[in-house]
Amino acid sequence: MKNNYSLFCNVCPWSHYIVSLGFLLLTAVANGAGTATGQVDPQATEIWNSVPVVVTPGAGSAPPSDAIILFDGSNHSAWEKGVGAADTYTDFAEFLQKLKKPGDPIAWDVKDGSMTVKPGSGYIKSKQAFGDVQLHVEWKSPNKLLKEGQDRGNSGIFLQGLYEVQVLDSYQHQTYSNGQAAAVYKQVSPLVNASLPPGQWQTYDIIFTAPVFGSTGNLVAPARVSVIHNGVLVQNNVSIWGPTTYRGVPLYRQHPAKLPLVLQDHNELVSFRNIWLREL
Amino acid sequence: MKNNYSLFCNVCPWSHYIVSLGFLLLTAVANGAGTATGQVDPQATEIWNSVPVVVTPGAGSAPPSDAIILFDGSNHSAWEKGVGAADTYTDFAEFLQKLKKPGDPIAWDVKDGSMTVKPGSGYIKSKQAFGDVQLHVEWKSPNKLLKEGQDRGNSGIFLQGLYEVQVLDSYQHQTYSNGQAAAVYKQVSPLVNASLPPGQWQTYDIIFTAPVFGSTGNLVAPARVSVIHNGVLVQNNVSIWGPTTYRGVPLYRQHPAKLPLVLQDHNELVSFRNIWLREL
Amino acid sequence: MKNNYSLFCNVCPWSHYIVSLGFLLLTAVANGAGTATGQVDPQATEIWNSVPVVVTPGAGSAPPSDAIILFDGSNHSAWEKGVGAADTYTDFAEFLQKLKKPGDPIAWDVKDGSMTVKPGSGYIKSKQAFGDVQLHVEWKSPNKLLKEGQDRGNSGIFLQGLYEVQVLDSYQHQTYSNGQAAAVYKQVSPLVNASLPPGQWQTYDIIFTAPVFGSTGNLVAPARVSVIHNGVLVQNNVSIWGPTTYRGVPLYRQHPAKLPLVLQDHNELVSFRNIWLREL
Amino acid sequence: MKNNYSLFCNVCPWSHYIVSLGFLLLTAVANGAGTATGQVDPQATEIWNSVPVVVTPGAGSAPPSDAIILFDGSNHSAWEKGVGAADTYTDFAEFLQKLKKPGDPIAWDVKDGSMTVKPGSGYIKSKQAFGDVQLHVEWKSPNKLLKEGQDRGNSGIFLQGLYEVQVLDSYQHQTYSNGQAAAVYKQVSPLVNASLPPGQWQTYDIIFTAPVFGSTGNLVAPARVSVIHNGVLVQNNVSIWGPTTYRGVPLYRQHPAKLPLVLQDHNELVSFRNIWLREL
Repeated sequence: MKNNYSLFCNVCPWSHYIVSLGFLLLTAVANGAGTATGQVDPQATEIWNSVPVVVTPGAGSAPPSDAIILFDGSNHSAWEKGVGAADTYTDFAEFLQKLKKPGDPIAWDVKDGSMTVKPGSGYIKSKQAFGDVQLHVEWKSPNKLLKEGQDRGNSGIFLQGLYEVQVLDSYQHQTYSNGQAAAVYKQVSPLVNASLPPGQWQTYDIIFTAPVFGSTGNLVAPARVSVIHNGVLVQNNVSIWGPTTYRGVPLYRQHPAKLPLVLQDHNELVSFRNIWLREL
Repeated sequence: MKNNYSLFCNVCPWSHYIVSLGFLLLTAVANGAGTATGQVDPQATEIWNSVPVVVTPGAGSAPPSDAIILFDGSNHSAWEKGVGAADTYTDFAEFLQKLKKPGDPIAWDVKDGSMTVKPGSGYIKSKQAFGDVQLHVEWKSPNKLLKEGQDRGNSGIFLQGLYEVQVLDSYQHQTYSNGQAAAVYKQVSPLVNASLPPGQWQTYDIIFTAPVFGSTGNLVAPARVSVIHNGVLVQNNVSIWGPTTYRGVPLYRQHPAKLPLVLQDHNELVSFRNIWLREL
Repeated sequence: MKNNYSLFCNVCPWSHYIVSLGFLLLTAVANGAGTATGQVDPQATEIWNSVPVVVTPGAGSAPPSDAIILFDGSNHSAWEKGVGAADTYTDFAEFLQKLKKPGDPIAWDVKDGSMTVKPGSGYIKSKQAFGDVQLHVEWKSPNKLLKEGQDRGNSGIFLQGLYEVQVLDSYQHQTYSNGQAAAVYKQVSPLVNASLPPGQWQTYDIIFTAPVFGSTGNLVAPARVSVIHNGVLVQNNVSIWGPTTYRGVPLYRQHPAKLPLVLQDHNELVSFRNIWLREL
Repeated sequence: MKNNYSLFCNVCPWSHYIVSLGFLLLTAVANGAGTATGQVDPQATEIWNSVPVVVTPGAGSAPPSDAIILFDGSNHSAWEKGVGAADTYTDFAEFLQKLKKPGDPIAWDVKDGSMTVKPGSGYIKSKQAFGDVQLHVEWKSPNKLLKEGQDRGNSGIFLQGLYEVQVLDSYQHQTYSNGQAAAVYKQVSPLVNASLPPGQWQTYDIIFTAPVFGSTGNLVAPARVSVIHNGVLVQNNVSIWGPTTYRGVPLYRQHPAKLPLVLQDHNELVSFRNIWLREL
């Protein structure tokens, strides 16, 4: 393509001649110098016709002005009863259907500005559904940890109810690497272990890009995730292999562009606070 | 997450015990050996519950069985009159609206199994709209090329009517690198110049991933393109900067997920044949 | 950054004034019109100072002029005895060391322009090592296929000796999806099944991007692969999870930027021909 | 590939039989149930043989234990005199050569824990060179801002001395969008404007992936960058088009894998503090 049309006739009748004069002069110099790049108009690479929206940042990890607040410490009204993990269903469509339906009120405890898993009461899911997000979550392992392995402060953050970033006490404590804190569970180990001791609040800053499916349900682009754990980059825009599965390899299946955020009840007293996200 | 639920109760009442036995034995060995990976069940990483659809390939560059044929040499019934280039509009919304509306029949000449630009008759667009595609196009520069620079067998393939892969006679002939054959026009130069002489048929095999826009019209993922020119990879999954623009830097603007394929009338007798694509 | 330096003093003494004049005029119009983009110099986005190298394409799937020919039908002098699959070693470093060492001559049969696996003689590897490549391979399953599952015309193309694109007779024949022809073995199933019947030559056109490792051996970017099987895109720039492993999930380990191409001996009479690649 | 070799002979003589028994049982169930995934060994997808290194996070935006401290408020000993912007050189090789050579001590002022541009004294560069990094920078526009446009608290962070993330007072103040704070200068506008008022400290948390070049100097993968501005994601893993250029479109040129970090002197009293990075 080399565009033959003139835009200038729409502007004002004399502009074409003036600009042409400018071009002539520029062209003359360009020919003389041999490289066009050096002498061309710097305005040519300025973008003026699209202005980024103003967002007021929060102080520290407080939510910015365009954030959707999922938990500010006062109540759990943004959440409802979840439906468990996808891989406990033999029928994926049934899982999706349940995930999208409104759920009962949740029983997790809200106290002192934080929300704690009520063991046995089940997963919880956000009432609102999301696609690509910047997500901030703070979480804390229980102080008294008698157990080992995967039973030590275990919970999980399921993006779109399907793609889990592991929550676990991994401070001076080992399990399989792709099952420790900040792992894409059973897939990608974190780059480093940036865990704080149990009883201390830890932060996840997550950048999540939802998968894209084609017209026949095929996968066009996998989900991707970055995780910053306590200020340390531990997942760097990794491709997620598919929905989290406890057994076997994951397999993408088509789902809606927006699905709820899910927090796991893994029978342990993991606490959460200051949960917000921004839709990207 | 470590899933506490058993899937097996849904299967048969005794399976749990048998598998548990298997696990016990496996676990024993794993503990003994130190690495679990070496001894685990190879079936664990097999995918059985999703079977790829069968597609019958075409011979050579003939279309495979799932292709949409846009031009097979007989007629141009898959095409209609286009609306020019986006950057000749001051209002992008107006461009999109026109692009999506049905167009008049086209005047390009069909002869001897190929379709040739009718200079001055305007761009043409496919009646059908597309998102991500694998696209095969064959094209030929006119034999008699008296002109130079961008006026030498110039045409273009506009993916989604917006993102141009340049068509130009670039055989032993130079223009600006990001304006030669197989360039993402005014953006990314081809890796190498794999052009054939004018008068010979050339092929483009293009893999195009459409851009993804967020809920507020923001860009979530740019368009990407690979181009294989006469069998040689010349664009390797490059990010497209935005809709092709003749002046200034490109800027993404939200548009529908599917838009027509467009071929350019640049006033020269460029010919096309064997145009097909597969929706990805 | 807004650059305060003038490039023009290096060019010719009067150019600055002339261009400034051009800028003044352009600026005047820009101010009048409201958008700078429409009126700026189209030369500003031309690239002249980097010219793509000329490559002469081959006819059909014949190698282009810059290809490295690994097998042209006459002899197997570009190959040497391989060292098996990485996951049969307990020590990855030992595998790498062996992979990089020169190997003995191979025993595979060359006849009628093709090269056929000599069952039991072992894997073969290219004498030369490669990073990112465009690879063309043609292969053929044996005509008489009595066996089923993974024992039906099984071989494999191991990019960098580590990342396998599966070779298998998958024509009207099912195995696990991520184990069929054109699968990233035990990882990513092909998008569709574009297999030809046994006894017919099939083509793989592969675009491979090697993984990138950081200074501490950590993974910075995973390997990526596209596969066009008999002209049909079946892997679309997918991330490879790690080196192919028969058991368990793959795990990236640092390795040199260039490693040999490997073909598998899986005890079956699979044939190969017309193998070439271009370093990207 | 289906691996025929047994790993178990290396482990202990009886293991093969035990595991085979496990497999038999598993296989029996699998055959009965129809899907292998549901019943396979969960250990198969655990990674044990690679343990993430422990990193102690810093409080708030304090550096983690594995960070390289480039400025902690006490002195500017990690920095030396820079060599200006690449596009002010006609010879890129000359620019690179100068960038890599040791520089003179810098004249920027260190006071009250921050470092302020000394106008006219020139760019500064880190003594150490870097590839992929997680970078934390805090910066502050001068309180008294009399000027407009690009002359309002302008500075810049040049990753590898080549790829600029813009520093500018963009609080209630407009310039071209791809020239405002957190823009990839003259390329990609930030997603939103998360600026704080002049006189307040602002943070950039940057994740940078260096470009990858091929053996002939060709670009294999472009540089990529994410920027979190005051806690708000404003660049989401965008591809950088090439080295920052004030005029014309950028063009990648091969350079070493590691190059210094550069801060710009744009003749204004911009201050910096708490600069650290982690090599990825």
